[in-house]
Parts: sequence; structure tokens; C-alpha cells
Amino acid sequence: MSKLVPPHGKEERLIPLLLEGDALKAEEKKAKSLKQLTSTSRETSDLIMLGIGAFTPLTGFMGKADWQGVCDKYLMADGTFWPIPITFSTDDEDVKEGDEVALKDVDTGTIIATMKVTEKYTVDKEHECKKVFGTTDMEHPGVEKVMGQAKYNLAGPVKVISESFYPEQFKEIYHRPAESRKIFDDKGWSRVAALQLRNPMHRSHEFLAKIAVEVMDGVYIHQLVGKLKPGDIPADVRVRAIQALVDNYFVKDTVVQGGYPMEMRYAGPREALLHATFRQNYGCSHMIIGRDHAGVGDYYGPFDAQKIFEEIPEGALKCKNLNIDWTFHCYKCMGMASMKTCPHGKEDRLLLSGTLVRKTLSEGGDLPKEFSHPEVVAILKEYYQNLDEKVEVKLHGAATGDANKK
Amino acid sequence: MSKLVPPHGKEERLIPLLLEGDALKAEEKKAKSLKQLTSTSRETSDLIMLGIGAFTPLTGFMGKADWQGVCDKYLMADGTFWPIPITFSTDDEDVKEGDEVALKDVDTGTIIATMKVTEKYTVDKEHECKKVFGTTDMEHPGVEKVMGQAKYNLAGPVKVISESFYPEQFKEIYHRPAESRKIFDDKGWSRVAALQLRNPMHRSHEFLAKIAVEVMDGVYIHQLVGKLKPGDIPADVRVRAIQALVDNYFVKDTVVQGGYPMEMRYAGPREALLHATFRQNYGCSHMIIGRDHAGVGDYYGPFDAQKIFEEIPEGALKCKNLNIDWTFHCYKCMGMASMKTCPHGKEDRLLLSGTLVRKTLSEGGDLPKEFSHPEVVAILKEYYQNLDEKVEVKLHGAATGDANKK
Repeated sequence: MSKLVPPHGKEERLIPLLLEGDALKAEEKKAKSLKQLTSTSRETSDLIMLGIGAFTPLTGFMGKADWQGVCDKYLMADGTFWPIPITFSTDDEDVKEGDEVALKDVDTGTIIATMKVTEKYTVDKEHECKKVFGTTDMEHPGVEKVMGQAKYNLAGPVKVISESFYPEQFKEIYHRPAESRKIFDDKGWSRVAALQLRNPMHRSHEFLAKIAVEVMDGVYIHQLVGKLKPGDIPADVRVRAIQALVDNYFVKDTVVQGGYPMEMRYAGPREALLHATFRQNYGCSHMIIGRDHAGVGDYYGPFDAQKIFEEIPEGALKCKNLNIDWTFHCYKCMGMASMKTCPHGKEDRLLLSGTLVRKTLSEGGDLPKEFSHPEVVAILKEYYQNLDEKVEVKLHGAATGDANKK
Repeated sequence: MSKLVPPHGKEERLIPLLLEGDALKAEEKKAKSLKQLTSTSRETSDLIMLGIGAFTPLTGFMGKADWQGVCDKYLMADGTFWPIPITFSTDDEDVKEGDEVALKDVDTGTIIATMKVTEKYTVDKEHECKKVFGTTDMEHPGVEKVMGQAKYNLAGPVKVISESFYPEQFKEIYHRPAESRKIFDDKGWSRVAALQLRNPMHRSHEFLAKIAVEVMDGVYIHQLVGKLKPGDIPADVRVRAIQALVDNYFVKDTVVQGGYPMEMRYAGPREALLHATFRQNYGCSHMIIGRDHAGVGDYYGPFDAQKIFEEIPEGALKCKNLNIDWTFHCYKCMGMASMKTCPHGKEDRLLLSGTLVRKTLSEGGDLPKEFSHPEVVAILKEYYQNLDEKVEVKLHGAATGDANKK
């Protein structure tokens, strides 16, 4: 009997939309004969999240009523809590309600899913941006993507037939929610905190995880392995760097490293809620929310993503926020601390900007051991020193997928 | 509107039994004319806990049905959760049901309360010891006290007329639950963790508090200021040492120092539940439970006091356990860690026995700064170096109060 938090939604069971066996083979065959619509990298990653049950209880892309309710009240038409619209857009004038279509990933050309179109509708994109991102500024990467969506939204149930390259490329860490739940169950965990990561773990991230280990049964170090921004460290390097940290600085069986295929929306508070929502499906009772969680630029206050959890209806989410402030090494505290526990001044704290860290590593320099453990630095240094050729490949890959439909 | 956890019991309001104003004056006068029964230091401290509302919803000493239910099922006769019998004993053969009596503290001679005797009964003390302490070994200090109780238990509602020397002697930290609640309310706290202390705070205790500060609104450093064991550091020295730590190593308004007059029973798991029960009355939503909490000798497993919280009926207590493992400085971790977060060996950890710490300080030596901050060590060193005369006074005081009735 699992002691984990139940999946999100009224039925409290995982609803994976990925086909298997004969049903999969039949659908793959059928898909080839269907009209093919282009799926952006964000839409593809959402489809895979739907496929593996991470977006339980969604059964496909949202219709207008769900879109409106989610934008305005965090609620789908049936009253289920959901914080960010999950939608698919197209400029195709011919596709109509009742059609069945195949959704083909723009980057890889893989058909990811089929969809039965139940609704074709238009939305006020600015309204969505105001509600979800709190801004319509096109400099905001999430706004840019929503404003760049095609003319129509298509809604309807999906059947997912491919997880794309994720299971293969991220073999060691790619988990479906049913798998992470089994891992946690096997360890006898019930209170599990998710740590959202899209960068290597320095000691500041280690500290977030360790605070959670102290007060929970375990921590799920859950990395975004969806599309990267240029300049980000590739997932395979991150995985190795994190594993070095886990192997050398954590007690066995207190942390599990995992990856999920979603893309960042940089929606700050709303995205923190989305992170908690799908982490509940992965079996996490708590979601670590740090300073400016899932934020970008200066669009959100440092604690907006923590506060929003107090504003949603009670019981909306069973995965609760575990708020932790900005963390750093303080020489006077003689260890890691946060703005909430360290009363000392800037001069006592070791604070390095991301830019300085990258510069130091790419020049082959060492980071202070209070900032990052040598085992981790060694892996990052190696990556940065071989960066020139690698970055070209990565940027090329990223460039196509990040293209908007318009 | 307070956001704090409500007081314990069905009514969810504090029930202080301390009289005030004219009612107090009248009762004081009446008490002098009543039969006077001797109250041991434990009974006196329980009376004051009743007086200030810390033992809400108790209205006096327990009768046989409550005693039996608390021993066997953690439940009073009316179904209210309570983990340890709160009883008064006497050898007086003449006192009978219906009598009103005055309860006079054995140490100070102060009349602490009056009681309307509603029941005079005997108990199987060995049964109580087995249930509460898990042992009948007379070497156990809690067992010794219960077995040393007088022949009869007297039950009945009490009217408390004195808090003895506590408000005066511990002016800076003595709080009634209504006061601590006001302090927390004024800070806007809702999630407050209590840290039980009966020793000075070294970095290991600081770390317990800081973990809680990270994940709560605030921490109540709540010291036992009831009767000491010989060799314990007096409360006034502790208060100064803790204040030095708070002033230099905590962010303002994240911790509050308080004191409460109860005596230790050393009942391990059962006492951990009692600590959480009365901390709920003080306004704490969480109780930090460390390794061997409230234990003595080898009577309890290191995590028994954590596990027992899983065994009581759901909803029995609104104050939840915040479990933290044994803590220490680890040189490889470069900071404080616990058995749950540090994978390294003994050779990497700074572990000092209490005996060695006392020896070092009394000889004027310094403790490593990773063990205890210099501001704290300075205060303790000063105390130990002047110990010879002080200890005699303290031991003399303790000797009378610890005497059993038999």
C-alpha cells in the first residue's frame, strides 16, 4: 500500500495517455494516414507529459472553457485545479471539429500523438499573458511563445504514441510518474520533496536539498531535460555533475535523481503551481520553492511564487510548497545559510554571479570549495574547456525548436 | 485573527486556572484556613502549568478513569488525547471526597493552589510505569518519582493562586501560553516550531533551530526552567548563553526565547507527546523531536520518540512532530549536518562528549569554534570557573525538592 500523496484530480489515479502494445502499433499505423499538424517543442513536451501521466488528470489539450477558467480562476470547467493553460495551436484553416489529426514534432519529425479535434477556437492571447505571466512584454520568453502561437487553438483528447528521444537520451534519469512512485514506494517514503533543477548543483542547491532531507523522507532532484536555452549546460553534463554530488555528499537512499521533458514557461508564481501540480503526480508531497522560482528578469517579486500557494483554494493541491530563501555559504555562520537564517553582512558571504562562475570555469579556474565541491567543479571544468565545438551543435539544435509558429 | 494552531482540546480555547483580582485575593485568604497538603516539586510545576493554561484542557488533577485511559490508550475519559497522567498524591488518611484542600509547595512553603477533592483512589504504580516509561526499573528517574508517590491519588478541579518564583526569577523568558501566542501573532506567524531545551545551545542545537527557521515562520526556543538535576547549568546562565547565540547568529524576529516551569519525567516517547501537547497550547504548530528526545540512559531507541507520533490517532494533536536526526559539524560537509545528510565517517565529524565539554570549560579551556560559538563559550567558561561556590547552593536547593513523598 503506497503511502505517497495521490495523483492530482478527483479520481486520484494516474491517467497516462501513452499507448502500448497492439493499440500503439495500430495507432502508429493510422497516424501516418492522418493529416499532420506541426507541434512546437513546447507542445511536444506537453504531449509527452500527457503521455506519461505527468499532467494527470488532463486527457488532452484544453478547450475554450478550460482555457478561460484556468486563466481566470485556476480551475478547469469541471472544477479541477490547474494553473497554466495546456493548449495546441495551428494556422490550418481546413481542420475542423470531428477531425482526427497527427501531431508531428517540429524538431525531430516524429509523430508524437494523434488528437481527436473536439473544438477549434480562438483566444485573447494578451489576456492569457496578463493572467499567466502578469505581463504582455514581448521580452518575456513565455509571453513571446504564447504571442507567437498560431491563429486557432485545437482541443481534444490525445493518444500519445512516442516519448521522442527522452527515454533513450536520458536513460539514467527519465522517469514516468508511475516509475518514480515505485522508486519512492520501494524506499518506504511518504513525505517526498521535489527539487526543481535546470542548472548544475552547487552548494546552494545542495543546501536546499539537504534542508528537505532533514525534514522529509527523501528528496527527488527533478531536472528539466526539455529544450535548453543557448548557454545552458547540457543535461548529460548536469546529470554527471549532480551524480558526483549525490555520491559524495548525500546519504544513500535519501535522494533520487530524475528528469522530466517539460519546457520552462518562466511564468514565476503560476509555473511554481504547475511544478507542484505535476510533482504531485510524480509522488511528491512537497515542492521546494526558492527565491524567484521559475522567474525570469524582474517580472516577479522574489517571494511571489511562495505567496501564491496561500492564494489558491485550500485542498486544491495535495503537493504543498516548501519555501526556502536564497542560500549561500557564510563564513561567520561557518556553513550554508539563507537570508532567513544568516544575520551577517555581504562581506561575510560567498556570493558569485552566474557570469563569473561560467567565466572562471571556462578559463579552467577553480571555484572556491565553499561554493562548489571539487568533484562537481572537475566535471563542469571539463565541459567548459571542450565547449567551443559542443556549443555549436547545441545551438543549432535549439534554434529550430524554439521557432514560434508565427 | 490569529493564524496559530488552536489550543488542545475540544473547545479549542485556553483554559488557564490561575485566579486574578478579587477572586485571587479571596482564594488566597480561604486557602490559609484549609487543610494543607504537601505538593512535590513535580506536582507544583504541574499546578503552575495548569494555572497558566499550558495543560489546557485539564481543569485539575486526573481521576482514576482518566488515569487509566491515559495510561492504556492516551485518552481521557471524555475522549481527549493526553499522553501522561497528571496526578497528585498524598498519604493523608483523613482527607476525603468533597473536601477542599490547599496545596503547599514542599520547597518554598508557598500555597500554590486549592483543590476540591472529587475522588480519592489508589493506582497500580507499576502499571503506570510500564505504560508511561516502558520500564519499572527504579534507576529510571521518572519511575523513581512515580514509585515514590504517596498512597492515594487525589483528583479534582484546582484553582491556582501562585506561579511561585517563576515569573520573577525568569522574567525575560517566562511566558504564559496567552503571552507566547500574542508574541507570535504580533509577528504574523502561523507555523511555529518549538525547540525543547534544557542545556545551553551549542551549534548542534543552533542547527536544529535553523533547520526549523528555514521551513517555518519562526522557532520558539522553549527552555525547561523547572527543577534541575545536579550538574545541570542553571537557567539564568543558559538564558544568557542562548541570548548571545540568538543575538549574533540568528536573523531578528525568527526566534523567540521562552521558558516553562515543568519538570522532566524522562519518559522519552510519551514525554515527547506531552511536549507537543502543551506546545500546542503555547501556539506551536510543530515540535522538534531529535534523537532520544526526553530520554535517559538506554531505555528508549533513538527514534522511538519520533515513531510514536505515527502511532497516536490521526487528529489527536494539531502540533506535529518535526523530526531531526543527531547533528554535528562535519569538516567534509563544510558545515553542520545530521546523520541523515552526512555520508562521511566519524573521522570527519566533530563529536565531543558532554563530559569532555564540561571538563574543558571548567578548566578554562576553549571549545572548537565549530562546536560552539565564542560568544557562547565565554559565558559558559565564566560560569564554570566560578562554579565551586554556586554548585553548592544549587545542589542544596535541588536536594529537598527532589525528595519523594515516600
